[in-house]
Amino acid sequence: MRDDALQGEMARLRGLVDAALGRHLSERLEGADGPVPPRLAEAMGYAVLGGGKRMRPVLTLAACEALGAPAENALPVACALEMIHAYSLVHDDLPSMDDDAERRGRPTVHVRYGVATAILTGDALLTEAFRVVTWPDQPLAPDARVRLVALVAEAAGASGMDGGQEHDMRAEQEEPSLELLGSLHAMKTGALFRASALGGAIAASATEAQRAQLERYGRLIGRAFQVTDDLLDFIERRAAPDAQTTGDPHEDAVNLAVRLGEAACRDEAARLTAEARAIAASLGERGWLLDAIAALIEARRS
Amino acid sequence: MRDDALQGEMARLRGLVDAALGRHLSERLEGADGPVPPRLAEAMGYAVLGGGKRMRPVLTLAACEALGAPAENALPVACALEMIHAYSLVHDDLPSMDDDAERRGRPTVHVRYGVATAILTGDALLTEAFRVVTWPDQPLAPDARVRLVALVAEAAGASGMDGGQEHDMRAEQEEPSLELLGSLHAMKTGALFRASALGGAIAASATEAQRAQLERYGRLIGRAFQVTDDLLDFIERRAAPDAQTTGDPHEDAVNLAVRLGEAACRDEAARLTAEARAIAASLGERGWLLDAIAALIEARRS
Repeated sequence: MRDDALQGEMARLRGLVDAALGRHLSERLEGADGPVPPRLAEAMGYAVLGGGKRMRPVLTLAACEALGAPAENALPVACALEMIHAYSLVHDDLPSMDDDAERRGRPTVHVRYGVATAILTGDALLTEAFRVVTWPDQPLAPDARVRLVALVAEAAGASGMDGGQEHDMRAEQEEPSLELLGSLHAMKTGALFRASALGGAIAASATEAQRAQLERYGRLIGRAFQVTDDLLDFIERRAAPDAQTTGDPHEDAVNLAVRLGEAACRDEAARLTAEARAIAASLGERGWLLDAIAALIEARRS
Repeated sequence: MRDDALQGEMARLRGLVDAALGRHLSERLEGADGPVPPRLAEAMGYAVLGGGKRMRPVLTLAACEALGAPAENALPVACALEMIHAYSLVHDDLPSMDDDAERRGRPTVHVRYGVATAILTGDALLTEAFRVVTWPDQPLAPDARVRLVALVAEAAGASGMDGGQEHDMRAEQEEPSLELLGSLHAMKTGALFRASALGGAIAASATEAQRAQLERYGRLIGRAFQVTDDLLDFIERRAAPDAQTTGDPHEDAVNLAVRLGEAACRDEAARLTAEARAIAASLGERGWLLDAIAALIEARRS
């Protein structure tokens, strides 16, 4: 029963996000300086609307509702964070970065549209994220919108996701210390999760104490997501059932399951999600979806 | 005398911009999610602080002062527009785009730091631009800051600069019509000039009528800048003194001097800057620097 309710709620929030992203991208074909070139508009849609779990924006909406405000308040920042996530995948997949030809079972943007258009598509989505947050037709007051712009920029930029990717690329040349590995993941993955939960709180006009709680919740499940991601990746990649490497030296250097061991990772995921669930519980009945999301992340199989 | 005053004023405004950019980039080493990786911080500084005429931010500060407000009001948006300009050069220079190895007499960012770091450097500067506009320590009210974020995003994104670059790349495969060429330049170059002048007006809490005037001024000098740029490029590149091509088929397809002829370009630059100067004159004595900037653009030799 609770499981059905959870699936229903996740689908409802994903539906809100998908509809808003689709609406926003299609309404953006005409601007003050000129119309968006059709090929660029198509590539932007391909990158954003081609599926994905919508983890980050769903988390944003759930955090907003957990504090008693309507999900619609948080929809602009939720869409912005998903656009940031989508742009980062487009750029990370490029030949000079991770050189991936497929994502979600389809050709990556640069395979389909060429490297130059893929770079521009990422740039345009990153830019669009900030336009979405400031979209005039939304309920938030200007000061909340300014805070959200700053939050998204902080999480996406040089001391957040971009910086994490730079650390990750350095790790190809030199195995990072465990401390640097922690920063790498906190920046590359954690920053957007932290911003997702905190963005929902800001959109809900939360008190400072609530903002701090949701920020902590976001950090915890961001780290738990990374730990379980590395575990799943390790289990999938290792050649033999008892092997202790993924078979790829760079992947080994940054994979927490390889670096810390499987058992330690499972313990850490349990500890992180337990603390996150305690925060969700402290929000009362309204916190149930945040509790369920943390539990989902601990138990994830994909 | 007027000429000395002009050079002095331009140097004063450039000095404000350079100091603010340097301060901002050095204060940005530590963030909520982690410290900026040193190599990324260095590449960002290399891209932004390595010279440049600072045309766009100087225009922003001049527009703000022309409306009677202190230049400091417009400093955040001026820095943001310069960061956008700097990031666009880093990405445009990439091997998959224009493939340029030198800029301003130095190796381009990707030659010096590698393609992957150059992509991230551009991404981080683009992101940083939005963080600068929302920087808390500034005199503007939240609603003005929201407007400025939207303005910068509109000018930089898919229906502005990014879209213009996509048009430009298509033009390598197919000669654009004169109409499309107009859009290409209005988006690729014009959008940031328009935003620079309008951004200064918004930062000066201008009336709607003043904003429209400054936006028009920005459009006019953006177009004039492009026309004179193409003229200078054409004159420099053509093989023989009487040749009517630049010797590069793609350059020929998008160069206004090739497409329209030298005389028509000079006429257009004169017409555009005359209209811009009339707007500057309508602002009274305070408009003198905007008048001088328009005259400089018409007469530019580099």
